[in-house]
Parts: sequence; C-alpha cells; structure tokens
Amino acid sequence: MSPTIGVFDSGFGGLTVLRELLKTVPEADYLYFGDTARLPYGSKSAHTVAKYAISSAHFLEQRGAGLLVIACNTATALALEDIKAASSLPVIGVVEPGAQRAAEISRTKKAAVIATEATVASHAYQKALARRGITATEKACPLLVPLVEEGWAEHAVTEQVAHIYLDEIFGNGAQGADVLLLGCTHYPLIRPLLRRVAPAEIQIVDSAESTAQEVAKQIERGSPGKNGQVHCFATDSVEKFRRLGGRFLGRPLETVELIDIEA
Amino acid sequence: MSPTIGVFDSGFGGLTVLRELLKTVPEADYLYFGDTARLPYGSKSAHTVAKYAISSAHFLEQRGAGLLVIACNTATALALEDIKAASSLPVIGVVEPGAQRAAEISRTKKAAVIATEATVASHAYQKALARRGITATEKACPLLVPLVEEGWAEHAVTEQVAHIYLDEIFGNGAQGADVLLLGCTHYPLIRPLLRRVAPAEIQIVDSAESTAQEVAKQIERGSPGKNGQVHCFATDSVEKFRRLGGRFLGRPLETVELIDIEA
Repeated sequence: MSPTIGVFDSGFGGLTVLRELLKTVPEADYLYFGDTARLPYGSKSAHTVAKYAISSAHFLEQRGAGLLVIACNTATALALEDIKAASSLPVIGVVEPGAQRAAEISRTKKAAVIATEATVASHAYQKALARRGITATEKACPLLVPLVEEGWAEHAVTEQVAHIYLDEIFGNGAQGADVLLLGCTHYPLIRPLLRRVAPAEIQIVDSAESTAQEVAKQIERGSPGKNGQVHCFATDSVEKFRRLGGRFLGRPLETVELIDIEA
Repeated sequence: MSPTIGVFDSGFGGLTVLRELLKTVPEADYLYFGDTARLPYGSKSAHTVAKYAISSAHFLEQRGAGLLVIACNTATALALEDIKAASSLPVIGVVEPGAQRAAEISRTKKAAVIATEATVASHAYQKALARRGITATEKACPLLVPLVEEGWAEHAVTEQVAHIYLDEIFGNGAQGADVLLLGCTHYPLIRPLLRRVAPAEIQIVDSAESTAQEVAKQIERGSPGKNGQVHCFATDSVEKFRRLGGRFLGRPLETVELIDIEA
C-alpha cells in the first residue's frame, strides 16, 4: 500500500509539488505542512532554515508520514542533509530530481537556473548539475515570488521583470544553455509567461514535476487503500492559506489546520 | 540625560526610523533590534506578530533600553497595545505620529494610506485618522518592499508598479485626498519616486519622520552624556543585515550582533 506522504514547505509554493504528486501518485494520502508563520525561507541563513525544517519534518513524522518530500528549494538546498540525519524516514528533496531531468535533456551541457537568493547562494543546483556534467549559471530572482503572490502571474509588469532577469542570465553566463531550470516552487505558476519570454530554443524543466516522478519511482505502488486525501497544516493564518493555496494546488483546499510548533 | 532608545523592527525597514531619530535626537544612544529570522511581519497574523514583537521588546528592555520605539508599522498596527501591556517602559509606535501629522496638514480632510497587507487589514491608520476627523482610503502595496530590497528604488519597473498602485487608490476611493501617508518603513527609500508619480497636489507624510519628532517631544532632552552610538542586533545573517541595512540607515552600520531569542 502506498505510504502517507508528508510534504513540507515554508509556505504555499510547495503546493505546486503536491499538485504534481496528486497527478503522478493519486492513490496516496498526503499531509502538507506550510510553515507560513516563518516564511519566506529564501532570505534566511542555512542555520535558521535547518532549525525550522527539522522541527517541521518531526511534526510530519509524528502525524504518520511514511516518506518526506521537502517541497521547498531553499530548505532542500540548505538543509536536506540535516533533515535526513534528523529523520528516520526516506527524505526526497526537489534539487536532485530537477538537476537529473535537466541533465537528461540538455544537449549543450549548459543550463540556466533561476531561484531565490538563498537557493542560489547555496549553489545546490550548480553542484548537483556539475556532478552530472552540466555547467550551470544561476540567477536569484527575488521579485518573482511576490509577483506571483500578488496574483500577477500574467501581468505586463511580471513579463517585464522576467525579461530583465532572463536577459541577464542568458546574456551573462548562460550563453549556449538549452535548459532553464525552475528552482523555486512558485515559478510553475508563471511557466506560460516564462515560456514566452525565454529564447525559443530553451527547454523549461520544473523541479516540482521531476520530484513527483522521483517519488513515484521510490515508493511501493500498491493497492489503492488510500485515495488522495490531503490534510494541510499551517503555522499562520488558515484563512490566507486557504485563499492563496488553492491557486497553487489548482483546486480548492479542504482541511487546513492551524499548528503552533514553537509551543 | 537622554535615555538609551530601543528601536524594534521586523528587519531593516525600521532603520529609516532610526535614521530620522539620529537626525532629531542625535545625543541619545540606540539599540536596534531587527527580527530578520522571522521577517516579514507584513503577511503574518496579529497573534503571531504580537508574540514575536513582545519577545523582542523584552530583549531590548533587558539590554538597557529606557524607551521603546516600535519602528514597524505592522507590529504597531497589530500589537502595540499588547507590547505596552507586556512592557514597563514607555512605548511609541509609528501609526499615531504619522496619523497626527497627516491630520495637521490635510485641508480636504481626506488621506490616502499605502502600507503592507497586514497593516491595511488592521485598519490601524484608518482608525487613527478617523479619530482626528480624517477619512482615509488604504491600499496594500505588497510589491514595493521587495522592489526596494532588490535595490530598484529608482527603477522603471518600480515606477510602473507605483503608478498602478497610486492610480488605483487615487482613482478608487481617495478622490479629493491631499495627503499620501507612507505606512511602511521601506517606503522612504522610494519617496522621490513616489513624489514624481503622485498627483502634484498631494503632500507626502512619512511616519518615520513624524515618529522621530514624537520621540523628541516625549523624552527629557538633557546633557549629551551619550553620543549617538548605535548597536544593532539581528536574528539572522549579520552579513546581510550589514549589507542591506546601510542603505536604509544612510550610513554604514558598525556593531551588528547575532541573537537567537527563541533559545
């Protein structure tokens, strides 16, 4: 029987990973933990992110998760090894599956990676791609998350900002790259816009999609004793989580429970 | 003798208040606390913000502050009464001084207020202005903070975003207003840009400036036994605090100490 899958993120973004999981492994049940009281992780240090992520991982384990997905690029980049060491469950992050997929489809062996400041500063994608023979140029795009959260996924301003960021990366380091790796779980919401803005020869790889495929490979696919139930926990405003979260998950959120894990 | 003044903010923004304090009360010493591990407060609930702000206020009190300035609009809007109740010191927030100044200069008795999502949702400015006979229209401008933090204070994109926000507020509710109140401590950095974008008849009121004037009124101005020393505490990356903070303070930061107040 498929295990209950615990999905952890700093906020709503990881719901794009859950969305892909529900497509790819629809027979599992899901616990989603959004650490909304302490988001965003993207501007915080490795020490702080590791501390927060481990307490959240323990929470999901206690609630019955049999597998943990760290659906947050920053937490994966900064704290995956710490989380693995602190947990007795199998733990899957979003960086390796994204890097693996990019390596499989790149012919020029060059990739461009866009992500938050902290993910870029960690060079987690650059290292994961280098291990696969791919040279990567990384670029922090701190405005894309707030633009998505403002609901401007198709706004002219977002297109202009994306142009500025992509012109910088493809004009400055990523010449010859044929893959654009989306290293932040908010970016799938602007994938159509990025597709228009990016050079035509560039293929887009979404870590959320690749991670769901990796989870499908690793679990024992079994009798569908479970049925895609989703239970969400948030550390701050449940109302806001419900309102914003639906956009990321692509369907309304049902159960959202407020949790105080500092207590 | 002037007391040591404790200045509290969720991050760097309150340094614009400290900057005004250093101009207005240069003879005091200052302790600045930036709760950077848990920023931004602007998207968090009242309960969470109050909890964080109170622990930070206690910290400043223990370190010798004789007066507390809550240099964070969100914390003031959501938690000022809770902080006052939890502290034995005089506590000054940024909302009342800003509202007072706006009321003094408005002839039409109508004001427009721009701020973060949480400050607007609290309607703290609307209520403070209503008590002074001013009708206020409020607008959340969540993209302005990340634009300032990206260093785009004079960027064409920021001007376009400001246009969209200001067109919305002055075209939709704030017709006839003659004051634009900056209800977020990041906004003084784009004051020149807002001046260009706002209708010519609008006067801009900056809560940071008004708050410094209120502090000057309330303290006993005495022999300058102190000399404008600034000691900063941050709950996350000291390096980043130093790098970004200088822009907000308008001069380099000297002592920045890392603090873990959850421990």
